[in-house]
Amino acid sequence: MTATVRIKANVLSRALEQRLLAAGASGTAADACVRALMHASRIGVDSHGVRLVSHYDSVLRAGRVKGNPDISVRRTAAATAVVDGDDGLGHLAGYRAMEEAIALAREAGIGAVGVVRSSHFGAAGAYAIAAAQAGMIGFATTNSDSAVTLFGGAKPFHGTNPLAFAAPSGGRRPWLVDMATSSIPLNRVLLFRALGKELPQGVAAGADGTATRDAHAASMLLPLGGEEFGFKGAALAGVATVLSAVLQGMTADHAMIPMVGAGDRTTPRNMGHFCLAIDPARFGGAEVFRAGMAAYLGAVRGAGPDTMAPGDREWTIEAEREREGIPVDLETAAFLGLLAGAEGADTTLQETSRI
Amino acid sequence: MTATVRIKANVLSRALEQRLLAAGASGTAADACVRALMHASRIGVDSHGVRLVSHYDSVLRAGRVKGNPDISVRRTAAATAVVDGDDGLGHLAGYRAMEEAIALAREAGIGAVGVVRSSHFGAAGAYAIAAAQAGMIGFATTNSDSAVTLFGGAKPFHGTNPLAFAAPSGGRRPWLVDMATSSIPLNRVLLFRALGKELPQGVAAGADGTATRDAHAASMLLPLGGEEFGFKGAALAGVATVLSAVLQGMTADHAMIPMVGAGDRTTPRNMGHFCLAIDPARFGGAEVFRAGMAAYLGAVRGAGPDTMAPGDREWTIEAEREREGIPVDLETAAFLGLLAGAEGADTTLQETSRI
Repeated sequence: MTATVRIKANVLSRALEQRLLAAGASGTAADACVRALMHASRIGVDSHGVRLVSHYDSVLRAGRVKGNPDISVRRTAAATAVVDGDDGLGHLAGYRAMEEAIALAREAGIGAVGVVRSSHFGAAGAYAIAAAQAGMIGFATTNSDSAVTLFGGAKPFHGTNPLAFAAPSGGRRPWLVDMATSSIPLNRVLLFRALGKELPQGVAAGADGTATRDAHAASMLLPLGGEEFGFKGAALAGVATVLSAVLQGMTADHAMIPMVGAGDRTTPRNMGHFCLAIDPARFGGAEVFRAGMAAYLGAVRGAGPDTMAPGDREWTIEAEREREGIPVDLETAAFLGLLAGAEGADTTLQETSRI
Repeated sequence: MTATVRIKANVLSRALEQRLLAAGASGTAADACVRALMHASRIGVDSHGVRLVSHYDSVLRAGRVKGNPDISVRRTAAATAVVDGDDGLGHLAGYRAMEEAIALAREAGIGAVGVVRSSHFGAAGAYAIAAAQAGMIGFATTNSDSAVTLFGGAKPFHGTNPLAFAAPSGGRRPWLVDMATSSIPLNRVLLFRALGKELPQGVAAGADGTATRDAHAASMLLPLGGEEFGFKGAALAGVATVLSAVLQGMTADHAMIPMVGAGDRTTPRNMGHFCLAIDPARFGGAEVFRAGMAAYLGAVRGAGPDTMAPGDREWTIEAEREREGIPVDLETAAFLGLLAGAEGADTTLQETSRI
């Protein structure tokens, strides 16, 4: 059971910042990390939210991740650039890459930026949404260490490799798609294990690669599409790997040092990411795009009593968390030194993340 | 039951070309259409292969599609362009768009080309692979008329909207991902109906939107991910719609004139497409990319006795069809005037397409 306390966003941000600074992160690195963690925690993607601070703290202290990296940006053509993350926090490199993609897209219509020598960057949607806030279509992806078996495979191969898209919606909140290419994340398996609940069909497999609904027997994830159509999820995971690792000359999922659980917390992981920004002004036009997005998303929402546009669920959670505070698990809250001031624990289980 | 005859590729290509010319297509339009149809039929994607010729014949004759369109290309920035298909065959506009994307990418590192005023362009992979043949990563997508319900919806909303990626593999054949964002295509439902077989779980729904395994009761498809995770497939279908329709100011899936079955075969459908080419030379380098793809795909194939890289299944079918000829259903073979010369019908069911 994961007991939580509700913390106001500004209090939580300050605590995160201080913890990261104390672990050796520079001000800009800590800012980027807090921005990405708070993006995820605000909208309910708790798997990629503030709970990760203790992980970043540990790899900053152990030396795998540099606190004060010398980030460099090299333009390679009119619409492309490569950001060298210098083994710092991935959030700093990720935001820098999307900023550059946006700047390139303003001039060239589209901008594509690869990131080399980076590390875990949290939720890919954090970077996609930065493009949407600049009036563009954003795409961000990364590969990650093995957790998901291939279609027909019997060992973890791809990471849960996310694909994230965002765009201005013509409304107050952007269109946001941020999805792992597995059906569920690994920590959902752990949650079901803790709850003694059966897993959904086709989301996880036992040690021999056979699908299982027993959360205790599950030792790897299945790709999106499950037992019959998992070749599609596996192919999409491969898209993340090709763009983030192969194109950048970085390490593929199966060869990557695990994010957690490995003895080694000093060797940099050579992670790559990939960011894209597309300027609607160079296609049908910015106004046509906004109006078209509003019409399309209106049609999605109007298609049935239960239909939602991508992001709608997240904006609802964000509004609720803005009022009520952000639920933080007690372990993380203690790590952040927040427990003394918190008023009462909300002991309901947090099962809000779909990533 | 779909009886087929095996036809040699060169004979089939000539017959297709002649039929399209007879229907009013210009030489360049017919060439593009034949190239795309033969791409699909060679690799086993029969849903998007030569069987479509009678459809293109009918819309060329009825006037929905112009036989001799005036295709124009407008560069809008250093890395972007818009192709106006002038209501011709989508294949011509699609190949023109990818050619332009490749040319832009050679200069700018990446090229993004939107297509407006187009029509059905067959298999999206045909265009992605053109980029791979030029040494680049290719991406092609289109939206299409409603066939797939939204997650939680009860009527067809998105099309089967494909996402296609390809890249040089470091080997003889490219990496190729060409996937509908539903689990199966509509014609797979018809096949199961004809066979009296139960559908897989979570691929189709009855008229009320509830998932059904009864092929006769199925009236729409479910998005990839099915009953529990179909929000992911629906979101990916939306990516196709946003890039192909909304960004180009073209018609969204739910508002589009149906490809078949509509009384109207004279009004152009205002379809949009989107093509992207990425030059590895502007990231980690062309050689690093090829070597990295070879290593990655080798790891995929080596991960288990049954694991395949995306495209492997298709190249196996292609080799077999190169030897044995391409299976063509009798109706299409008759339409192409090929039956007199064919030797014996292969009456096995064709159930090879995953699209």
